[in-house]
Order: sequence, then C-alpha cells, then structure tokens
Amino acid sequence: MSIRIGIVGYGNVGRGAEKAVLAASDMELRAVFTRREPKTLELADGSIPALPVGAAAGMVGEIDVMLLCGGSATDLWEQGPQFAAMFSTVDSFDTHARIPEYMAAVGAAARDTTAIVSSGWDPGLFSIMRALSASVLPDGSSYTFWGRGVSQGHSDALRRVHGVMDAIQYTVPIESAVEAVRSGALPQLGTRDKHLRECYVVAEPGADKRALEGTIKSMPDYFADYDTTVRFIEESELAANHSKMPHGGMVVRSGRTGLNGQVMEFSLKLDSNPEFTGSILAAYARAAYRMSREGAFGAKTVFDVPLSYLSQDSISELIMRLL
Amino acid sequence: MSIRIGIVGYGNVGRGAEKAVLAASDMELRAVFTRREPKTLELADGSIPALPVGAAAGMVGEIDVMLLCGGSATDLWEQGPQFAAMFSTVDSFDTHARIPEYMAAVGAAARDTTAIVSSGWDPGLFSIMRALSASVLPDGSSYTFWGRGVSQGHSDALRRVHGVMDAIQYTVPIESAVEAVRSGALPQLGTRDKHLRECYVVAEPGADKRALEGTIKSMPDYFADYDTTVRFIEESELAANHSKMPHGGMVVRSGRTGLNGQVMEFSLKLDSNPEFTGSILAAYARAAYRMSREGAFGAKTVFDVPLSYLSQDSISELIMRLL
Repeated sequence: MSIRIGIVGYGNVGRGAEKAVLAASDMELRAVFTRREPKTLELADGSIPALPVGAAAGMVGEIDVMLLCGGSATDLWEQGPQFAAMFSTVDSFDTHARIPEYMAAVGAAARDTTAIVSSGWDPGLFSIMRALSASVLPDGSSYTFWGRGVSQGHSDALRRVHGVMDAIQYTVPIESAVEAVRSGALPQLGTRDKHLRECYVVAEPGADKRALEGTIKSMPDYFADYDTTVRFIEESELAANHSKMPHGGMVVRSGRTGLNGQVMEFSLKLDSNPEFTGSILAAYARAAYRMSREGAFGAKTVFDVPLSYLSQDSISELIMRLL
Repeated sequence: MSIRIGIVGYGNVGRGAEKAVLAASDMELRAVFTRREPKTLELADGSIPALPVGAAAGMVGEIDVMLLCGGSATDLWEQGPQFAAMFSTVDSFDTHARIPEYMAAVGAAARDTTAIVSSGWDPGLFSIMRALSASVLPDGSSYTFWGRGVSQGHSDALRRVHGVMDAIQYTVPIESAVEAVRSGALPQLGTRDKHLRECYVVAEPGADKRALEGTIKSMPDYFADYDTTVRFIEESELAANHSKMPHGGMVVRSGRTGLNGQVMEFSLKLDSNPEFTGSILAAYARAAYRMSREGAFGAKTVFDVPLSYLSQDSISELIMRLL
C-alpha cells in the first residue's frame, strides 16, 4: 500500500521533495499546496493537483503525511502546528537555537499525529552523526564544517545591501582547520578559523564598489566575524556560473579510547542542496507514517527514529543486504 | 541508576569494552567472565571479579546487560543463545553472510531479553551508513572500503602457512578507486580494484622465502584475488612497528537526485580497532537496557535502535546540544 503524501510549499525544497516522492514506488503524491495562485505552479507531473493551502483541511484522511517545505523564519511557525493538528508531518526546521520552542508548539498540536521536525541534513543527518559519534566516542570533540556551498541566508543578506543588484555567497571550510581536526589534534577553533565567506556581487550601475565592499565586510552577524572576499561580477556571469545550489560539509569527531586516537568523519558533497533536503524529507515520511500507525504521536526528531523506518525495504532485506 | 554490565570474553575486544564501561558514569562493571583460569586475568580495576563463564547463570538479576566479546567463528554461536536466554546482550557478530541464521538462534533464546547483534563498526556503524544513505539517496550505489588496517583473519591465515613464524596483514584501499567513487563516476569495481593486501612476514630460519611468497600470494579466498605484497622482516621489527591494531575504512554513497550528483561519505580512522569496537558495544548496552525495559524483546540490530538510546544524555539535552 502506498503512503499518500502532500507537499506544502513549492519552492526549491518543495520541488526537491516532489522529485523524491514521484521516484519512490511506495509513495503516492496526492497534492501540492501553495499560498501562491495554484494555477501558476508548474508541477513535474501534470496529473497532480496544485491546491491552495486552505484546501488541506478538507483532505484529512486522504493524505497520510504532509511534507512541510516552507521556510523556518516564518512559514513553519504557522504551518507546523497547523498541519500537525490534522496530519502527520515532516519538516526541515533549521533554526537550531529555537528547535525546543518550535517542537513544543508542534508537539502541542500533534495529539494524534506524528510530527518529525528538523529532518534535513543540518539539523538532521549531521545531528545523527553528532549524536552517534559522541555516544560511541564519549571522550572527544565534535567539529562541524559547512561548505563549500551556497548559504541562502548570507546571499539574501548581500541582496539587501543598498547598491547590490544581485549576489551569491559561498561558505568555505578552511582546509588547514579541517586537516588539524582530522589529525586528532583537537584544536580550539574560533569562528574565523573554521570558515571563509566568498561573495560574488553584481553591483547596481554607478555604485561605489569600494564602499560596497567595506559595507559588506563589516556587516555584523553575517560577515564581520569572518575573513570575507568580495568579487564584483557581471549579471551574465552570475547567471552562467552561480545558478546552482551546491552545498555540503562534514561532521568530524576526534577522540580517544585508552591511549589511542580515533577519528570518525561524515561528509556530504551535494550538487543540489534543496533536492537532497527534499529526498531526506521523503525518507522521513516513511518513518512518520510507520510511527503514527504505532501510535507514537507528538513532535519527534531524527533521534527518535529507528533507521529501518526510513527504508522502503523490509527489515529482513536490510539485514541480508546492508548489515 | 547505573546499568549493571558483565563482560564475557577477555580478549582484545573485551579489554576495549572494559575501558569503555569503566569510563561511563552511567554504567557499573559487575564482572568479567572468562573460559580461562579467572585468576590469570589482569583486569584494569582489581576490585572487579573475574569469574568462570559458568558462574554467570547464578547472577541473573544482578547484571542488566552482558557484552559478548568472543569471536564469531565459534564463541558467539554458543554464547549468543546461551546468554540471551538469561540476560540482555550486545555482541559484534561479524560473519555477514550468516547474520540471519545467527539472529534466528539468538532470537529464539531471547524470549524476555533484548539481544542486539552485530553492533561493531562493520557490521554496525557502517551498516547504519549503508541503510541511511540508501534511504535518502535511493538512486545510487554504495561502496565500502576497509583499511588501511590490520585484518586479523588474514594475519591468522599467514601464520598458518608452513615456514611462517609470525606475520601481520594490512588491508589497503586503492586510492584511485576511492577517488573514482568520490567523483560520482559510479565505477564498477571488482575485488582486485578496491583493495591491496600488504603482508609483513617473519620467516622460520632456513625457510625458502621465494617459495613462501608464492604460496602466500596464491592462497585462495585470502590473497589470490588481490594484488598482494609480501615483505620479509625480522621478529624485532614486527614487534616494534606492527604491534598495534589500527583499522578504519569508509562507506561512500554516490547517487543522483534529478540531474544532480550527491555524495555521502562516512569514514573511520582508528588507532585501535578492538577498543573502538568495545566502545560501540558499551553504547549499545544502553540501548539493550532501555529496550528490554520497554519489552522490546528478541534479537535486534542497529537498524532497530533509535539513536537517542545510545546516549547517556536525555533526549532534551540531545536536542539542545546536538540537533
């Protein structure tokens, strides 16, 4: 029997989730919900209905799991609790510091549904690695590096600067810091030691580029604490060379057992960050479906999910082929 | 309250498990069981009793989880079912092809206990990575490489060759194969393409080294299918430079979402293979303890265990610090 899926929000992650669900033989995409005019959506499969978000309330019982693909800043604060009251849900809420608060809001609504929050790759897969590695190697330190990849938040911050027409920002791990961590040296690393920020900026005609560069490099929270480079490019070059959304990163745990050094590393190299996130949401939809059928209601995280629940394969197949 | 642990078997893995349990503030090591003369064991903590294996039956109710640290070839076939009938257990049974058969034997005995089998790093952590990565990236291929590290099985095989006094074998992943996999090229790799085998051999006095080398390189199952190097060294060099048991390896998943390539990699670089395995057993002891209290009886694998069960921290601490 297929798991009946709905997708809420049709941005980059929503389109990634759509691809993953359409490719999964144990899932059936029942509808895509949007706050835009539904007719303007160009779905990958024309037979799937695009509906206004408000129409979801009329489909309780027809959809097993809703993949919430909105943003963490505002969309999910509203949609998380709203949808968890009606459906099992999966989201990739990624404001780390506010996860407990978000979980409380979603958990209060998820009284007879399973709501898996923060299930992208960070938080999500990287969290799994941080917890797993800290559990099996308690005497040690974990380091998370991001990139090389596009940070949507930092790119947006650049675009808000007066005099910037368009821009993109790459987060780049500092190779010497990564090597120091891998060596088992347990270095103390500050913000500036771990990542560089590379900005590619299309300036408005007539803008003072030197002043712009200074403004950008001194932006608090975003760039002031990092070694930041600003390169001015043409609009055509931005479109030609910077339209993809690659990302990646790594979690490294370096520790000791007795007198021996042990290093665990998990890394991702992604040509498309939103498609990978959408794929993870689809896998966790299986878990939300199975957990809801077992009565494991409420707000859950990747820490609560047995790994077999993510797979389309039966546990005996997993044991035979992958254990 | 402490989890009361027993260790069965005091070889390299047993000593690694002992270190991990003694270092864990939520565990208490109650006894080490051995088939040797208990008085000959030199435990890390002299206040812990070393007891004959047969004494375990009298300690039902005094020990929560037994860490079974015997070998997969014969020890665990006997001890797995025997102990699972009395205690919750964790082992690192690693004969991949026979896991279903082993699980059936252990599961039949574990009627009111939780027996987590095959929880080392391969099977174990690498299995987790294979299952997780295949679930979130279904359109792709997984590759497992081992090493650079000591293979106990291959070292033992060398030592059984007539004319060999002592020996050690390192399994070495072929770098060009690893790079091809990381590039996303999805190469077809045969046995000889993935690993080299490096043998360091101390010959018996007067042995014909050229003949020995030929014998080793042509051994079926162990060396004939690989590019194998044999270097003859002195006993003193073997003792000085080859007495550690480093190991490691990696699981790489390379796949696509839509038109985009995505690569996931998990790697281990271990100075001490048995200590790391012992640490994993200790972490899974927490899971066996918690699952047994929930009534999740029977033979289980790493695929059945929610990750939060491995940690000493509460789920809310995990969410705040590691999600």
